[in-house]
Parts: sequence; structure tokens; C-alpha cells
Amino acid sequence: MIILGIDPGLRTTGFGVIEKHGSKLRYIASGTVKTASEGALPPRLKIILQGVTEIIATYRPDCAAIEKVFVNVNPQSTLLLGQARGAAICALVNADLDVAEYTALQLKQAVTGHGKAAKEQVQDMVARLLCLPGLPGSDAADALGVAICHANSVDALAMIGALAPQLQGLRMKRGRLVG
Amino acid sequence: MIILGIDPGLRTTGFGVIEKHGSKLRYIASGTVKTASEGALPPRLKIILQGVTEIIATYRPDCAAIEKVFVNVNPQSTLLLGQARGAAICALVNADLDVAEYTALQLKQAVTGHGKAAKEQVQDMVARLLCLPGLPGSDAADALGVAICHANSVDALAMIGALAPQLQGLRMKRGRLVG
Repeated sequence: MIILGIDPGLRTTGFGVIEKHGSKLRYIASGTVKTASEGALPPRLKIILQGVTEIIATYRPDCAAIEKVFVNVNPQSTLLLGQARGAAICALVNADLDVAEYTALQLKQAVTGHGKAAKEQVQDMVARLLCLPGLPGSDAADALGVAICHANSVDALAMIGALAPQLQGLRMKRGRLVG
Repeated sequence: MIILGIDPGLRTTGFGVIEKHGSKLRYIASGTVKTASEGALPPRLKIILQGVTEIIATYRPDCAAIEKVFVNVNPQSTLLLGQARGAAICALVNADLDVAEYTALQLKQAVTGHGKAAKEQVQDMVARLLCLPGLPGSDAADALGVAICHANSVDALAMIGALAPQLQGLRMKRGRLVG
């Protein structure tokens, strides 16, 4: 199963692609889609839409996971970030991918074991979990982190399914299992 | 010239299509794209993306205009609205349409002559300007209003171009002419 993780942003959208084979995770690719900070918003959203669409065409993921963004103190920034995240999600749903959403807290817990880990700890643990030769950039690390988080979550759901067949068909929503 | 106007929203995205022929405006179509308020965000954004894409395929506009959204008091709502607007813009740029942006103030000034007009005044004036047999719904009226606003703005730019050839190549940005 190939998982595409996305860390959305207007200037920089991080992406990370991993393969899950049983309990093993293998690094495939990671990087960023960047937009110039000047200029109108619609062409910048187009770059994000096209960038993520190209990543999907290249790595053909089976599913996707995206970070739930932090609500900024500045409403104008929140609005811009929302539009950038909307563009990234559009690329995913346009390719008919199921999109799971995880908070930064869930991502950090999955990768480092605690929800208050610093950026550097996430980068370090992502590099260890995926046996990378060096540290990934911060945006790529978050994107790989959300993909790892989803890989674990898929396992947890499969385990529940195996233990209690009557619970099958449940899915994760806002960190809870729902029917 | 066929202009598509969009009033973005997560539950209801209004659209309006008008034709500009010289100084005359003709109504073509209007309506809404609605998403169910329950359920995860990605499938809701997919409905907006696909809905606006279908509207473009049906009416084949030459350009598009979208309302700049009001920054809500509630950051979570601002974030949701931003994502919905991002999805609508993605459908427009994905169809290679140029997208102009206008504030609610600019829209109201263009349609009613003053920036503090009530919703009902916008609906009423849109119906008069486009010779509609009845009042359009509020979301459709705003979408038609932003299309009318763009039609006027195109005229103003053309007039400046005709008066002073050396000013050609300017465009409207944040309500100002820029190079």
C-alpha cells in the first residue's frame, strides 16, 4: 500500500510518499511544492493543484493523508492557509483518493510517541523510522509523518477488525471510531 | 464575452452566468452547488470542485470572477470557508480561466451604487439589471452580482486603454490599477 502524506501551506506544501508492506514502512519520495509569495491567489492555488496532481501521477498512491492545519491567530492568514489546503485536497479527491485527516498532535504522537515534540524531533524520528541517510526538511518531514500516522491507523483499524468482526466497517473520524 | 461569477461557501456555493455584449448584459443561468453539512470535508470539497467544473463545461465562460470572502469571527469557520473557496478557485483555474476577485463592497457598489446595500437590495438590483422575471436566491444573486461587477470593471479598463494607449497592460489588483 502506497500512502501519500501532505503538509499543506500556501508558500510551501510538503509531500511524502511511503510504502507500507505488512508492518514495514519504506521511504519512496518526499519534497515540497512552492509558490512565489507575490502575485494573485488563483495562480498560486493552480500551482498547488497541479503540483500535487503531478506527484499523484508519478507515485500512484493508494490513499492519502493530510495534516489538519493549526488555526492561526491572524484571520487573513487562516483564510489563505484554508484556501491552500483546499487546493491540495482538490488534487487528491480529483484523483479519486480517499483522504484521511490527522491533527499535528496525532502526527507527533505517531512519530515520536508524545504530542508535544519539537519540529527537530519529528524530523529525527521520521529519518530513523524510514532509515533515511539524512534529515528531511521540516515540511517534507511533516508530510512523511502524516503518512506514517495513517499507516499506523490503518493497522489499528485492521486489528480491531480482526478481533471483533462485528466492528468491521468502522472508520476513524476526529480521532474516534465511527460507523 | 461570457462571465461566470462565484459566491463561495462550504454549504452553498452560488454561481451566475451572464453574457456581456458591448454595454448590454444578458442573463444566462444561475443557481447553487450544495453540500450536506454532515460528513468529512474532502468529499464535500469534491462536490464543489465537480459542481463548478460541470457548470464550466455547460456554459463555457470566457472568464470568471469570485467574491472575496468575509473573514469570520470564528477561526474554525474561516478555515472551512477558505477551503471551500479554494476548491471553487481550483475548478476555475483547472479550466484555464482567468479569475478576478472582488470584495462584497465592490460588488454592492457595482450593482446598487453604494457599498452598504442590504442583501435584498442586491437581489432586487440584479433582477432589474438582468431583466429577470423574479428575484434570484441570495447566493445566486451575489454570484450574478460579482459577474456584473467584473463586466463593469472590464469596461473601465477598456476605456482607460482607449484614452491612453501608454497605460495599456495595466490590470486591476485590490481595487487599484497595477502594472
